[in-house]
Amino acid sequence: MILCDIGNTYVHFAQGYHLFSSSKENLKHLKLQDEIFYISVNAEGEKALLKTYPKAKNLAQYFSLETDYIGLGIDRQMACLAVSNGVVVDAGSAITIDMMKDSKHLGGCILPGLAQYIHAYKASASVLEQPFKALATLETLPNNTKDAVSYGIISSIIACIQNLAQNQKIYLCGGDAKFLSAFLPHSICNERLVFDGMQIALKKIGLL
Amino acid sequence: MILCDIGNTYVHFAQGYHLFSSSKENLKHLKLQDEIFYISVNAEGEKALLKTYPKAKNLAQYFSLETDYIGLGIDRQMACLAVSNGVVVDAGSAITIDMMKDSKHLGGCILPGLAQYIHAYKASASVLEQPFKALATLETLPNNTKDAVSYGIISSIIACIQNLAQNQKIYLCGGDAKFLSAFLPHSICNERLVFDGMQIALKKIGLL
Repeated sequence: MILCDIGNTYVHFAQGYHLFSSSKENLKHLKLQDEIFYISVNAEGEKALLKTYPKAKNLAQYFSLETDYIGLGIDRQMACLAVSNGVVVDAGSAITIDMMKDSKHLGGCILPGLAQYIHAYKASASVLEQPFKALATLETLPNNTKDAVSYGIISSIIACIQNLAQNQKIYLCGGDAKFLSAFLPHSICNERLVFDGMQIALKKIGLL
Repeated sequence: MILCDIGNTYVHFAQGYHLFSSSKENLKHLKLQDEIFYISVNAEGEKALLKTYPKAKNLAQYFSLETDYIGLGIDRQMACLAVSNGVVVDAGSAITIDMMKDSKHLGGCILPGLAQYIHAYKASASVLEQPFKALATLETLPNNTKDAVSYGIISSIIACIQNLAQNQKIYLCGGDAKFLSAFLPHSICNERLVFDGMQIALKKIGLL
């Protein structure tokens, strides 16, 4: 069985312990043989997958998370499904922060992705359109504009996550998970989080 | 004497207790009679002021703040000059957060302005291009995309300020100061902060 998570930029796969990604255009070159279960937040990507693998099954039609949130993306639902208690952070082209308690989704908030902040700074003032710098620490206060911008991005994201988490465990997935988790002591970085949730969903509906 | 702070969007004035603002285009209609001391972060605005009031004096040429920060805007310098110990937040088209200790500037960071975040969300995903909603509280976790976006903006800014401030006093100025200060208990909102700093600078150089 192959699990597939169609995002806005890439299509991610899990086949057993093997994780791999593809662009929409290259899906046809993958030559996947096993049964595919997928989730999608991108209609174009879904169309591309189904064109090459017409038997692939959309897991969203069988399952949804217990929540009062209207419009919770299916990838967020799956990541949350993998966490009974704690904070779930998916750090990709947007950063979603969701709260789970006793397997119920309590709500969440959204920040821009690390690489997307530049567009807001550009609108603030042209001098603030600075390339993101992966600062190693937040202990040193910035003394120039470039550092001040990157520090602002990182420290506001980290402080927001910590403020919501308080003493609860923090689980991170997505492309910037590893970078952010370095600033969050005791956080757990799990790049399989969405796939773990998909497996739980498959079990719940008796398909695994 | 009239104090003048030329920003990127508006030109702000203080004449005694009277505060007023003008667009660059309307400066000529103000018919100001007193001596003008100004600071400027906008070359075009400065040109417009000097065209109508050629005797106006740029305070920046007489004064700068004690700091290791390279490229600290003169408006940030003046706001910081008004605070010996504490955190100085100027919340306008960008949000600057600066740390002052014993009248020395220790460094600072920069966030996009409240209204500028939308450009980053737009780059993250089109569904996240939501108009900013002035939430009244951060106690309730969002249950829809619009609230999740506004909550993300407000809570990340507030958490960033609080994290830097710890137990120090927080001083806010700028157009969004009042809105943000409602989320920061014991913070001090002072729309005159930049002008207070200008007055201190004038005293230091013996012009007041």
